[in-house]
Amino acid sequence: MPYFSTTVQHIRSSEIRDLMKLATRPDIISFAGGMPNNDLFPVKEIDEIFLTLDPQKKKTAFQYGPTSGYPPLLDTLNEYLRTKGLPVDTHRLMITTGSLQAINILGMEFIDPGDVVLTENPSFIGGLAVFKAFQADIKGIPLMHDGLDLEELELAVEKYQPKLLYIIPNFHNPAGIIYSKEKRRKVLEILEGKDIVLLEDDAYNELYFNEVAQKLTRPVMAVNDKNIEVVYTGSFSKIMGPGFRLGWMLASPEIYEKAEIIKQGIDACSPNFTQVLANEFMQRGLLSRYLKRIREAYAERSLIMKESLEKYMPEEVQWNQPQGGFYYWLQLPEFMDSAEILKESVKNGAVFVTGKTFDPENKRNNYIRLSYSNMDINQIDMGVKIIAKAIEQNLHKQLKCS
Amino acid sequence: MPYFSTTVQHIRSSEIRDLMKLATRPDIISFAGGMPNNDLFPVKEIDEIFLTLDPQKKKTAFQYGPTSGYPPLLDTLNEYLRTKGLPVDTHRLMITTGSLQAINILGMEFIDPGDVVLTENPSFIGGLAVFKAFQADIKGIPLMHDGLDLEELELAVEKYQPKLLYIIPNFHNPAGIIYSKEKRRKVLEILEGKDIVLLEDDAYNELYFNEVAQKLTRPVMAVNDKNIEVVYTGSFSKIMGPGFRLGWMLASPEIYEKAEIIKQGIDACSPNFTQVLANEFMQRGLLSRYLKRIREAYAERSLIMKESLEKYMPEEVQWNQPQGGFYYWLQLPEFMDSAEILKESVKNGAVFVTGKTFDPENKRNNYIRLSYSNMDINQIDMGVKIIAKAIEQNLHKQLKCS
Repeated sequence: MPYFSTTVQHIRSSEIRDLMKLATRPDIISFAGGMPNNDLFPVKEIDEIFLTLDPQKKKTAFQYGPTSGYPPLLDTLNEYLRTKGLPVDTHRLMITTGSLQAINILGMEFIDPGDVVLTENPSFIGGLAVFKAFQADIKGIPLMHDGLDLEELELAVEKYQPKLLYIIPNFHNPAGIIYSKEKRRKVLEILEGKDIVLLEDDAYNELYFNEVAQKLTRPVMAVNDKNIEVVYTGSFSKIMGPGFRLGWMLASPEIYEKAEIIKQGIDACSPNFTQVLANEFMQRGLLSRYLKRIREAYAERSLIMKESLEKYMPEEVQWNQPQGGFYYWLQLPEFMDSAEILKESVKNGAVFVTGKTFDPENKRNNYIRLSYSNMDINQIDMGVKIIAKAIEQNLHKQLKCS
Repeated sequence: MPYFSTTVQHIRSSEIRDLMKLATRPDIISFAGGMPNNDLFPVKEIDEIFLTLDPQKKKTAFQYGPTSGYPPLLDTLNEYLRTKGLPVDTHRLMITTGSLQAINILGMEFIDPGDVVLTENPSFIGGLAVFKAFQADIKGIPLMHDGLDLEELELAVEKYQPKLLYIIPNFHNPAGIIYSKEKRRKVLEILEGKDIVLLEDDAYNELYFNEVAQKLTRPVMAVNDKNIEVVYTGSFSKIMGPGFRLGWMLASPEIYEKAEIIKQGIDACSPNFTQVLANEFMQRGLLSRYLKRIREAYAERSLIMKESLEKYMPEEVQWNQPQGGFYYWLQLPEFMDSAEILKESVKNGAVFVTGKTFDPENKRNNYIRLSYSNMDINQIDMGVKIIAKAIEQNLHKQLKCS
């Protein structure tokens, strides 16, 4: 099976599936899912759009569309990306079925079995799954509070001659960090002249909590003065709803051209139905108003979690304060196995995802990811308390034994 | 590039793209597109659903769903497929992003570069593109008026030990034929004990024009008493709208299990937004009423085209009368090049797809596909007249030269 390394994928998948089953139990407080909040979706806005939509546009919504995307949405999105400093005039935009599809397409375009792909460690599980499915040899580069460990990156670039570097510079999943301006520049410097494609996944770009963070979100692709081949992906999942299954990819004409042919063979086009709605959502100015609302809501949740963490967590546990996005990434003492913490927490009614899941080598296990995006806001404090207690107990057990 | 044989794909893609550009020009009558009619979509029905949808369901529509599909839709669809005699109790159903994605997933699951895949000749261009992308060695088996040429199938099965056989038994695209009951049984007999997966693409199942045809539409999978590994795919594209990007795949638990993991890495889930609407469409009984309406509309179009073909086409041109679906498949005299006919027809204002496009070896060119599904009904006669004239002229030229 050349496209699919069954064993690894399978173990991972069933673990996650079991966890997700737990996560939907009403008696369990779930910090596991990386999804937007159910009560924050722009339901009213979409109702309004649907009620007032031009009948011709509605018919278009039912029909096949071009593989590249619904043309009015491409125009709208190009103008939106221009405001972020992205090179929309020299590059081409494609709508994808979620931004995961964009990563997949690039996998198809670039990865031969055995090719080295560099990712952050930790990294987004969906990205890792794609690279594994294409039998890439994934090398994880340690992620620090302000971006990749540059020394390690430099060494890996020299040593492995990788095809791709995959990064999530803004409000990282799972690590919750944002890259500093300097690290963005340095990453580009390290890649200069190296024939490595930089895949920049910017799914959380809009979810900043303050102006300082907002300024930092300027994409790496927007400051690319080194002529690096950057492919930029984004998503409607976090700014409208994952149920729309819409993402996008901005790439050089050479990469775009092959990507379009690949997409034609994958699903012909992304759902026109949701593309028409997404375009109206942006065109009518509803997106920017909506973003203001959800930024405030997620910031509030993040703050509540911060207070709970400070209140309950033993001092051996460390984390960075997220400036946007959905995640806290907790570092436990080296000797601790987060799978044990999970087992204990589940008993008392809280779940999360263990660190190993996000490690390309599926090893490092003294981390846990807490997502504050989609539980009842009043449960955050109780959930953190449960997890903290499990950590505390584990800590005492370890101390007793040593 | 292991997943993508650029050259072939690219030529094909740009040809099609040019054709599709012509096909959208208002001064051109297009028989080229294999899409449903723009004016026949269930717009009113979906409006009604949207206006009366339970708020909780609406929220669900915005969120991620399970990789296998929105559970209520899976239930509804299982019961619907049960009425077609399909083995829903022993097999598992998955919602896919169009049925093309199902074919893709099977490609990932089964095809190693160089593996032989048997298809009908002619066959659906999307299916062929998938198999080519996975570097299959595609062998086309001639298609007759009632299904595959069984002798050729038997020979190919012995000679090539193929991994997959891909067929479209109902209202074939492009050939417009339907398999006889006998041929369905014989295909199963030939595959017995051979370890070949039968991929049954049933995108046009519901689009029969009369009771005789309806009875014939019983899927091959539903009469599989030989224990053949059949994977059955279907689509909402022709019974609701391609813009929903929803299809499905029914497969044995073994095949399903891997398929689900593959899909998880491809796009995580199909659009929940359109899945919720599709489920309501079926649950509220709107689908069956809608199908009655579109069957009549397409039957009428088919009849008009029949009359025009009989009126204008020279006797050297042959075709089968479709009993459902969207297509007439015209056989021109052996010496004729349908690309020349196309060139001439375009000048006079009509386009179609040439036969070569549907030939796995991209050779046989004395066929043309005429779709009657999506032009102004009053233009069918004029369009057929234009194409007939181009054929007539070509015929005279050839006769003069010989």
